[in-house]
Amino acid sequence: METIKVSSKSNPNNVAGALSNMLKDNDQISVQVIGAGALNQLIKSIIICRGFLAPLGKTIKCIPSFTEININNSVKTGIKIAILSGDN
Amino acid sequence: METIKVSSKSNPNNVAGALSNMLKDNDQISVQVIGAGALNQLIKSIIICRGFLAPLGKTIKCIPSFTEININNSVKTGIKIAILSGDN
Repeated sequence: METIKVSSKSNPNNVAGALSNMLKDNDQISVQVIGAGALNQLIKSIIICRGFLAPLGKTIKCIPSFTEININNSVKTGIKIAILSGDN
Repeated sequence: METIKVSSKSNPNNVAGALSNMLKDNDQISVQVIGAGALNQLIKSIIICRGFLAPLGKTIKCIPSFTEININNSVKTGIKIAILSGDN
């Protein structure tokens, strides 16, 4: 499974490009983030990604959930966004 | 149209309850926020709201977009989350 990292300093355009590439091969991907800043960049990236995929006849919807992420042996609560790609 | 305000200090449980009530009467609602902190609270609220609606046989999906919000005659770019409620 491909993994991308999104932080509060990520460029939403770059992340959107990476998401688009992943969604060309998969109908569903999921991205995990920790913190408000990273979530903000991710949601902006998803919006931009919609613009990349719309000309290909694809739309995306999101399903958020809580997730536990293990970083350096400490467990943090993050947010997971499942991104579903469809043809309408 | 009913309006709810979500800020970075909003309690996600309370917002989730308000969203659930709105989604009982409407298949689609939209919520606008400005800033990473408010977006974070909104996404957490949506996750909690999923738990309120699941026992009623409803699931929700989100579609984010950019939006311009006029506050005190200055235009700011916010994020709008359309929340779609469905029976599966």
